[in-house]
Amino acid sequence: MQSGWVLFAAFALGGSWSGAPSASGADSTRNCSVTPPYLPPTAINTTLRLQALRGVMAPLNITAYIIPGTDAHLSEYIAERDARRAWMTGFTGSAGTAVVTQTRAVLWTDSRYWVQAERQMDCNWELERDSSISSITDWLIREVAEGKEIGFDPFLFSMDTYEAYNVKLAPAKRVLKSLPDNLVDKVWTDRPPVPTDSIFRLPDNIIERTWQMKVEDIRQQIRDNQYKPTAVLLSALDETAWLFNLRGNDIPYNPFFYSYTLLTQEEIWLFVHTERVSDELKAYLNASCYTAQCVQLLDYAQVRVYLQDYLVRPSVRVWIGTEYTTRALSELITPEEKILTTAYSPVLITKAVKDQTEQQVLKDAHVRDAVAVMQLLMRLEKSVPKGEETELTAAHFVNECRMKQKYSKGPSFETISASGPNAALAHYSPTNETNRKLSVNEMYLVDSGGQYLDGTTDITRTVHWGTPTDFQKEAFTRVLMGNIELSRTIFPEGTRGVYMEMLARKALWEVGLNYGHGTGHGVGNYFGVHEWPVGFQSNNIPFKEGMFTSIEPGYYKENDFGIRIEDVAVVVKAETKYGNNYMTFETVSLVPYDRKLIDTSIMSPQQLQWLDSYYQKIRSVMGPELERLHLKEEREWMMKNTEPFLSAGAPSLISSLTLTLTVLSSTLLQCLH
Amino acid sequence: MQSGWVLFAAFALGGSWSGAPSASGADSTRNCSVTPPYLPPTAINTTLRLQALRGVMAPLNITAYIIPGTDAHLSEYIAERDARRAWMTGFTGSAGTAVVTQTRAVLWTDSRYWVQAERQMDCNWELERDSSISSITDWLIREVAEGKEIGFDPFLFSMDTYEAYNVKLAPAKRVLKSLPDNLVDKVWTDRPPVPTDSIFRLPDNIIERTWQMKVEDIRQQIRDNQYKPTAVLLSALDETAWLFNLRGNDIPYNPFFYSYTLLTQEEIWLFVHTERVSDELKAYLNASCYTAQCVQLLDYAQVRVYLQDYLVRPSVRVWIGTEYTTRALSELITPEEKILTTAYSPVLITKAVKDQTEQQVLKDAHVRDAVAVMQLLMRLEKSVPKGEETELTAAHFVNECRMKQKYSKGPSFETISASGPNAALAHYSPTNETNRKLSVNEMYLVDSGGQYLDGTTDITRTVHWGTPTDFQKEAFTRVLMGNIELSRTIFPEGTRGVYMEMLARKALWEVGLNYGHGTGHGVGNYFGVHEWPVGFQSNNIPFKEGMFTSIEPGYYKENDFGIRIEDVAVVVKAETKYGNNYMTFETVSLVPYDRKLIDTSIMSPQQLQWLDSYYQKIRSVMGPELERLHLKEEREWMMKNTEPFLSAGAPSLISSLTLTLTVLSSTLLQCLH
Repeated sequence: MQSGWVLFAAFALGGSWSGAPSASGADSTRNCSVTPPYLPPTAINTTLRLQALRGVMAPLNITAYIIPGTDAHLSEYIAERDARRAWMTGFTGSAGTAVVTQTRAVLWTDSRYWVQAERQMDCNWELERDSSISSITDWLIREVAEGKEIGFDPFLFSMDTYEAYNVKLAPAKRVLKSLPDNLVDKVWTDRPPVPTDSIFRLPDNIIERTWQMKVEDIRQQIRDNQYKPTAVLLSALDETAWLFNLRGNDIPYNPFFYSYTLLTQEEIWLFVHTERVSDELKAYLNASCYTAQCVQLLDYAQVRVYLQDYLVRPSVRVWIGTEYTTRALSELITPEEKILTTAYSPVLITKAVKDQTEQQVLKDAHVRDAVAVMQLLMRLEKSVPKGEETELTAAHFVNECRMKQKYSKGPSFETISASGPNAALAHYSPTNETNRKLSVNEMYLVDSGGQYLDGTTDITRTVHWGTPTDFQKEAFTRVLMGNIELSRTIFPEGTRGVYMEMLARKALWEVGLNYGHGTGHGVGNYFGVHEWPVGFQSNNIPFKEGMFTSIEPGYYKENDFGIRIEDVAVVVKAETKYGNNYMTFETVSLVPYDRKLIDTSIMSPQQLQWLDSYYQKIRSVMGPELERLHLKEEREWMMKNTEPFLSAGAPSLISSLTLTLTVLSSTLLQCLH
Repeated sequence: MQSGWVLFAAFALGGSWSGAPSASGADSTRNCSVTPPYLPPTAINTTLRLQALRGVMAPLNITAYIIPGTDAHLSEYIAERDARRAWMTGFTGSAGTAVVTQTRAVLWTDSRYWVQAERQMDCNWELERDSSISSITDWLIREVAEGKEIGFDPFLFSMDTYEAYNVKLAPAKRVLKSLPDNLVDKVWTDRPPVPTDSIFRLPDNIIERTWQMKVEDIRQQIRDNQYKPTAVLLSALDETAWLFNLRGNDIPYNPFFYSYTLLTQEEIWLFVHTERVSDELKAYLNASCYTAQCVQLLDYAQVRVYLQDYLVRPSVRVWIGTEYTTRALSELITPEEKILTTAYSPVLITKAVKDQTEQQVLKDAHVRDAVAVMQLLMRLEKSVPKGEETELTAAHFVNECRMKQKYSKGPSFETISASGPNAALAHYSPTNETNRKLSVNEMYLVDSGGQYLDGTTDITRTVHWGTPTDFQKEAFTRVLMGNIELSRTIFPEGTRGVYMEMLARKALWEVGLNYGHGTGHGVGNYFGVHEWPVGFQSNNIPFKEGMFTSIEPGYYKENDFGIRIEDVAVVVKAETKYGNNYMTFETVSLVPYDRKLIDTSIMSPQQLQWLDSYYQKIRSVMGPELERLHLKEEREWMMKNTEPFLSAGAPSLISSLTLTLTVLSSTLLQCLH
């Protein structure tokens, strides 16, 4: 699943609410310039909500209040109870910030969401068609008088976001006022409660390191750090979940539970909603004692109080990762010598490299996942020509197939099932309104993934059931060449992904094509589908053996089609002629690509060889699995779709030669015509 | 010329003073543990110098004084009068920092220079085998009591270096005390004077933009900047030289003169040693008036005074580039709202893109330069087998050849002429001590460049006059493949070099080889040979049409041989099938590679095709030039060495096929044997 579209050269973001143009026309959006204003039925009446919020703002003497769209752990997906900006504004898009004063209410969001905002907001709200923090601070400087205060909830501001606001507001003498008690919560009378589901532990058979081993590992890193920290504070939800081998269901798609951890050499403080911890879990966590090996369960809401208590101890220094710590915690850690910052906490760095068991079970999950994806592709081949499928039925079917697999825990994100022009839109997922019938005349892109108790998957395939155009074939093949070139590259351990990701673009760049999103992100063992800091972005950490990442180049032609080919791969040792410590990627997703879209004549023999050996691996792993499951038809489908491109059976060099000669001859013939 | 060796994976820095092991054994270095200490004849007696320095330190109440090895413009090469650390310590290496207290004197330098330091320093000095700032600050915290002051010359500290010291010292309550009057200068009685050579202007025929046009361009950028600066302050010597189309001879190898510029909308303040500005130059600079179009000549030494005067004006904000501004100037620009920082000044960013004339004359300079390099390579082919050449004679010869060319202004850096194991050493240049006879049994690397009035050149060729080993051929070919892959790549305008430079390493990585330095740096029109911020490093700016950069992968086998293949290339528009704004590199260095070292069987048809078309270009450009110069033998040498690898005359696709088939057949035959 591509994560965040970058405004890359030659790629313009287009699209509207959930992507597709609406059939219902102009009256699906509000019109605030007529009297009375026209509001579509999708708009939310926010008059009372705003009145209530302004009521609690007044006694605090703040001129403006900022309402971001995130939660206190800077999570990618947020629970309904954290959707404060959505409740306040009516606008439910994943990106956007609201600001309220006594007289005005404004939402900032980017172009993907402009139409959606006009459909969901009433005329109490103005829309600023810009999502930059500087646009917000410029507005605040205009609206708020010098010396006046602007309130914000520090739990909803990352350290970086806070700095980005403050660097603009402070010189202009507008004061940011930290209000840890959220003002929206005060007036949100029917706010959903904290989930009551129990927190649960992972089964022993998929665990190599107990939580005690992990705690000792992190404590060792604290002792080894030259800046002499005394504690690590964990804020991201997957950090605590990883440390204790625990999971929960508080957030959509991510098996996390609300939590913080403060780990010292003597204490393990776990901040959770303690009523959700069962007696069995208390025993597992050693929660009834007070030595260095016992987990002390503390109330989630008390994290600031306990952190302050800890900080009054002499000579303490708290180590935090700046990327996932909020201003609510960082603002408490003063003076400067009490804080040690790195971009990522030692837990996130340690977690990035999977141990042997994690590697094995994550691969196992991908085997089961491949069955589900093959079942989808096989079904669509038969049903689409009959006109029986839509984007929604296909998405539903693949989710169903996954649910039948062992350890299944549902999808790892909302399935992107996109036909024709819909696939060219960023962040598209089908809705009743945008749902498109699948057709032999359009390309189809499906980007989906599953959560399994042992692993998280994420895979994209693009197919065509009719006759693709030459350009579609060329674009698909070049995307595939990019995927292969990056997958097969050999690099020194410790190379950063961002220095290699152009390999995934090179075949596209050669003909002046490109794509506007990143090339891949880490994945984990029953964790978030975007498991940073592994991946190919500039803030990702260097690649080491045992890291898993997606590799997902694409190409998108506006209003026409979209192509993405995404696999998950693990970093493994490469055998080289002269060197040691060289790495390469081993693809663990096991689903063949659409042969119809592959133009072998523009691929290099090395790329075809890679493809054949990948297909050979699919056969050797998926063959037995499909047999075991008595999925005869699926097995045949898989065998047919993994036929080698080079002549089978021959030693690979000879095959390659044969193929090259074949390709050369045919090119030569074309040439002579 | 490679610039700064990076400690890259799998590459260990080795070497000693100027590279080669000395024949003279242990007694060439000092021995301070015997009584009396043993000092080699190369050691400098620093007793009186230290005494004098300590004498001026005492009344200032500073406990320690830091002496860096740079100048007030953070220049790559420094004039003798700026070699304060060398004069103080005896140690003349290009990297190293000294610290003096009343009782101790210590030099910090990196492994390249340890032996040299032991040869040049007397026993007044301790050697710290570490060059990190944290090693120096750790030492200072041990030696200097809390609350005590550490003196430094702010002219010799970049903003970043100052921060790196201060971030360690301030929390430990050791105080950095800025002393703009350098203490070494006070005691350096025979310090060389400021050069008296005139500053000179570039001839009109190589100039497209007058200084007035450049000034207007930068003023426009000041007006357009959203942060509303009122002035630009230029500190790097090439910034002022570029702005006024002037050059000088104050620094070795770089045609610069001591200067600063403060440019506002109303004033142009040029700080120079005014006595060096001729009447003609004063007229050229419009120096006798005071409007916005007149250059006011101010005394070089008064830059701080005038900057302070400017800063008391209301609402001013000075724009500086942090990479080339010293603490001496930045510390004056307070409070915070008076300073605007970017990594590079608008002058450096503007200068990075060459105008049409600059592009043309820089290419012209490379044509003349190629004649000199070909003359060297041709001569060595004949003289080396006769045992008539050494590293020094070869270096001397190529310099001579360049001097005969039009517009020649000498070498652009000290020629690296390195045979066998010497070529594997970083920063090697031959000395009488290390000079090696050139031999048909060793590889030879020559990295050299010239300054010409119209351009700066930099080229490296590696050759073998006998029978190279298979490994040497493979390594050379893979380095060449890297050079070609990077040179022929097509990329969207605005791509950063650091995201593409792995293409230069890929063929090496495939077999587990690598190199430990950067892949290239900008070059300019009669400027420094390392013209930042263009290049492939992480702090370089995105590539745009009209930028020139070196491309220089290598491979180094310790104690055996070194390979580097370096060309200068310009970023040009690429024609692509579908896209606009795609770029590629056009190589402007015009000297063929050693055919004997090229193993075409491991190269791709595309690489061979690139090579052939590059050779075709050498023929078409250098053929007429050599004819014009009546260099018949050189012309024949050039023609022989630029024979196409693919069959000549045929359409390129067919050639490629033919070659591929040939390669394939021979591989197949080998296979069957």
